[in-house]
Amino acid sequence: MGVGCSSSLPPTVNNPHCSITFPHTSAHTNPTSNHLPINWLARAHLQKPTKSPISKRLFTLDSARKTPTLKCGRTAQMEIEGGSDSKPILDLHSLDDNLVQKMVYDALVWSSLHGLVVGDRNVQRSGTVPGVGMVHAPFALLPTVFPENQWKLACEVAPIFNELVDRVSLDGKFLQESLSRTKKVDAFTSRLLDIHSKMLEINKKEEIRLGLHRSDYMLDEKTKLLLQIELNTISTSFPGLGSVVSELHRSLLKNYGEHLGCDVNCTPSNDAANRFSEALAKAWIEYNNPKAVIMVVVQPEERNMYDQHWLSFNLKERYPFILFMTQPLTLKNPFNTHNVTMIRKTMAEIDKEGEIQPDGTLLVGGHAIAVIYFRAGYAPTDYPSEAEWRARLLMEHSSAIKCPSISYHLTGTKKIQQELAKPNVLEKFIDNKEDIAKLRKCFAGLWSLDDADIVDTAIEKPHLFVMKPQREGGGNNIYGDDVREALLRLRKDGKEQNAAYILMQRIFPTDSATFLVRDGSCHKDHAVSELGIYGAYLRNKDKVIVNERSGYLMRTKVSSSNEGGVAAGFAVLDSLYLT
Amino acid sequence: MGVGCSSSLPPTVNNPHCSITFPHTSAHTNPTSNHLPINWLARAHLQKPTKSPISKRLFTLDSARKTPTLKCGRTAQMEIEGGSDSKPILDLHSLDDNLVQKMVYDALVWSSLHGLVVGDRNVQRSGTVPGVGMVHAPFALLPTVFPENQWKLACEVAPIFNELVDRVSLDGKFLQESLSRTKKVDAFTSRLLDIHSKMLEINKKEEIRLGLHRSDYMLDEKTKLLLQIELNTISTSFPGLGSVVSELHRSLLKNYGEHLGCDVNCTPSNDAANRFSEALAKAWIEYNNPKAVIMVVVQPEERNMYDQHWLSFNLKERYPFILFMTQPLTLKNPFNTHNVTMIRKTMAEIDKEGEIQPDGTLLVGGHAIAVIYFRAGYAPTDYPSEAEWRARLLMEHSSAIKCPSISYHLTGTKKIQQELAKPNVLEKFIDNKEDIAKLRKCFAGLWSLDDADIVDTAIEKPHLFVMKPQREGGGNNIYGDDVREALLRLRKDGKEQNAAYILMQRIFPTDSATFLVRDGSCHKDHAVSELGIYGAYLRNKDKVIVNERSGYLMRTKVSSSNEGGVAAGFAVLDSLYLT
Repeated sequence: MGVGCSSSLPPTVNNPHCSITFPHTSAHTNPTSNHLPINWLARAHLQKPTKSPISKRLFTLDSARKTPTLKCGRTAQMEIEGGSDSKPILDLHSLDDNLVQKMVYDALVWSSLHGLVVGDRNVQRSGTVPGVGMVHAPFALLPTVFPENQWKLACEVAPIFNELVDRVSLDGKFLQESLSRTKKVDAFTSRLLDIHSKMLEINKKEEIRLGLHRSDYMLDEKTKLLLQIELNTISTSFPGLGSVVSELHRSLLKNYGEHLGCDVNCTPSNDAANRFSEALAKAWIEYNNPKAVIMVVVQPEERNMYDQHWLSFNLKERYPFILFMTQPLTLKNPFNTHNVTMIRKTMAEIDKEGEIQPDGTLLVGGHAIAVIYFRAGYAPTDYPSEAEWRARLLMEHSSAIKCPSISYHLTGTKKIQQELAKPNVLEKFIDNKEDIAKLRKCFAGLWSLDDADIVDTAIEKPHLFVMKPQREGGGNNIYGDDVREALLRLRKDGKEQNAAYILMQRIFPTDSATFLVRDGSCHKDHAVSELGIYGAYLRNKDKVIVNERSGYLMRTKVSSSNEGGVAAGFAVLDSLYLT
Repeated sequence: MGVGCSSSLPPTVNNPHCSITFPHTSAHTNPTSNHLPINWLARAHLQKPTKSPISKRLFTLDSARKTPTLKCGRTAQMEIEGGSDSKPILDLHSLDDNLVQKMVYDALVWSSLHGLVVGDRNVQRSGTVPGVGMVHAPFALLPTVFPENQWKLACEVAPIFNELVDRVSLDGKFLQESLSRTKKVDAFTSRLLDIHSKMLEINKKEEIRLGLHRSDYMLDEKTKLLLQIELNTISTSFPGLGSVVSELHRSLLKNYGEHLGCDVNCTPSNDAANRFSEALAKAWIEYNNPKAVIMVVVQPEERNMYDQHWLSFNLKERYPFILFMTQPLTLKNPFNTHNVTMIRKTMAEIDKEGEIQPDGTLLVGGHAIAVIYFRAGYAPTDYPSEAEWRARLLMEHSSAIKCPSISYHLTGTKKIQQELAKPNVLEKFIDNKEDIAKLRKCFAGLWSLDDADIVDTAIEKPHLFVMKPQREGGGNNIYGDDVREALLRLRKDGKEQNAAYILMQRIFPTDSATFLVRDGSCHKDHAVSELGIYGAYLRNKDKVIVNERSGYLMRTKVSSSNEGGVAAGFAVLDSLYLT
């Protein structure tokens, strides 16, 4: 887990800490061991990502199946069944150029009319003033083929991960101990831990806990396993635009599906924006102060603001009704006189305008705050001065519902992800054996650098590993021969710096031909994809109010832009085509 | 009538031939005379537009009437009733600054998410590539107050104007004779007339005729009359964005109506985009060739492209169903295999790719063309070479349905507008006396410069007149003392040049305080508004298939930017608040 690709960053994702792939352990390794199994090494040769024929990658719908089938139709209901026996019927290479151009034009028009937009980095005010300097968000022209059974599995574990985060977050000692060595080498984690310590000292309880997470996966070509890359617990990006891009693809498939030989029903609808909005509104209800507002913590400049605005808009347009339907008695006539209001504040503004009343209520600019929704605060760069740290501490002290709390935030760090992958650790937090097995099936290999055996192996076969720094914001994962060099240097420098990194199994995803549309132009390239599954969790004391999968995010990026189909590069928004 | 403010021009309407106001004759002048009546002169003092207290201008809703009333609710059904007895309850000056800022922010966000966008003139490809260089369309923050009875009247005459255009268009001799002197002094009209002559020579009949018009009005403060400025019969702009801005205002009133003391139901919904799309689709059905497409004739660069794209989008998303419902037997399974397709072509492309088959079918780039929808071709600048004129002639020769035909286009010229205002001319085209009276009630004073008496009066009292050049694209209406100078100069130069202009009564609209939002900033200023009523007309031989009002367009501009609240300046999109 880790702050990782959490956003509030422009979705072109050229930022360094937004890398897409990391290796993990396969599920057929012994789940109680985090040592590298020999059979895994044998399978995972020193290969580059597999370039399978494109005809096998996209639109693997059986050609006889031109009308919506029950199989596709059932996807939305999340029924679990076996793998697909469908066959490829579309070869991207055979697509007529004119048809592609028409689709690109239509897609650009559709995006412009339906708010699939971001701020243009070339326009000065595009990160501060809505409505100026807009450009369409980068997107894949067509959805990416994905195995239905893996999709279902990822959906199925979402509520289990939600629950896991909640339980880990309650174990303050576990968090502090697991991160104790990281604290010494990473100033950012250290400051977060300080706040966490203060909360432990005063025995601060968060009775209402809201999590809006996203668990990111890649499909390993060799093992055919969906392996978790990280679990984002703060500022998970693209619930808004990700929903819109799914609608774009559905619109294109509706209009061109016949030419493409594919079926719109194989692209699952994506209601991430609505589900997150609803979870925020339900948290607001639990806070039970009709005059209080939801505060979005934002960066001073945010070119990805429209992704956030989709949530605010949905909340405003849809929620009063839901509120009335589900909680007519809790609040007096809430939708007439106390619509759910969202305000946007930077950390610096919160420091300046914020105060805590004797009863714990956080006031910011005179507004009582019911829910704090972080779309900033996840990276060291979000804390340029002590003001921001004061703001973070102030918020944590208050009675407002934090999404996330400091505990939830820490639970999403890479070090905790690695700790949870150790034998017998999941068992501390989850009772149900089946649930544990399901989670572990998603875990890639994750190791501490204190494990001398694995370091030896990684020096010998560096291409099978990725070194991930705990530090966020720098985001420089280490690949290939650099892994060997880094490990040898660390071995020389002594043990202290080991805690700044973890080692992960490297995933070798298949790449496939994709049309990537950016800045009004379309390019065909080989690309790899990452699937994120959103999860929403809301709990008030013993009562779990929301625990659900909440839509998804597919991101796709050119594989040649990095070593072995992983690491930094420009990603486009995408959706799923289930087969 | 005139090409006038027809668009495909960016909606900031800084272009010179997009002026907003022109004087007309009042309805209480003798309808059988186009001489300036003395009582009209007496009423219309040499005044600047009336600056009434803002409290009387905006939101003149009775304060007791906070809930939707039947009166407002009925507006959409177009029932005719008396004037309003409501009183102002909102003073814009008393609006809290914070509230205004919040509304502006929300409005900018809403616009970005809902396609209320145009190309940004500062971004190079914004007129050619959709999805890049977008900025919100300029808009009034709140709808403008308008008397319900005048709105109903304007709606009521829309079908009569539709019918009038159709009948005038059939009288080739009337068009040629009325424009014979204009032909000599205006090269553009001359070329249009040449095409028209050729069609008359070969006795070309347009059996299926489609008109998508917009009649523009201003409310004269002194006489309280709604007077027609012009009737646009080609390339009428903003059916798309105009519909969206109405939705924006309805969204704002829904969220802030209580703070503003006004009622969302007093802003009529605006379905111009849907109605126009449907009229285009119905014309396509009448053409009855399932493989044929609708061709939009566009300018090579078009920053107002999204206005047009809204129609294409609606056509694509909504029409297959309507088609099936209304005409299941006409076309074989049309919505499965022959969706209504729109293509976009410039005049130069049509010249290059176009050909006419022996049966009259127009082929462009291999597509058979069912309907030609002009969003270019209305101004001299649209014909930079002979290629464009060849294309226009080619299209006119074909069997495709032209929206508009050359006859419809000519019927919309200012000279014809002036001719129709002469005594006993309407009677040639319309039988129903009541309809004639209704049309005439909208006519402002319109005179030829050959009328020596009126020219004398205009030299004496130039502030009561506007001189409008027939020539489009130049668009320099003449006001104030310049009218006197121009008339004296023409008198010296001889009669020939008289035909280049018409004289119109000058309208003195009330101005009112308005918040105008442009480029992400909001400014408060005094502004005047112009109401456009869209009309759609479709006829196949003797059968009238569509004759309807089709939504509306409100445009508002700063009154201080021009003389007497009229002429060029920057206009913002607006909607109505009926009282």
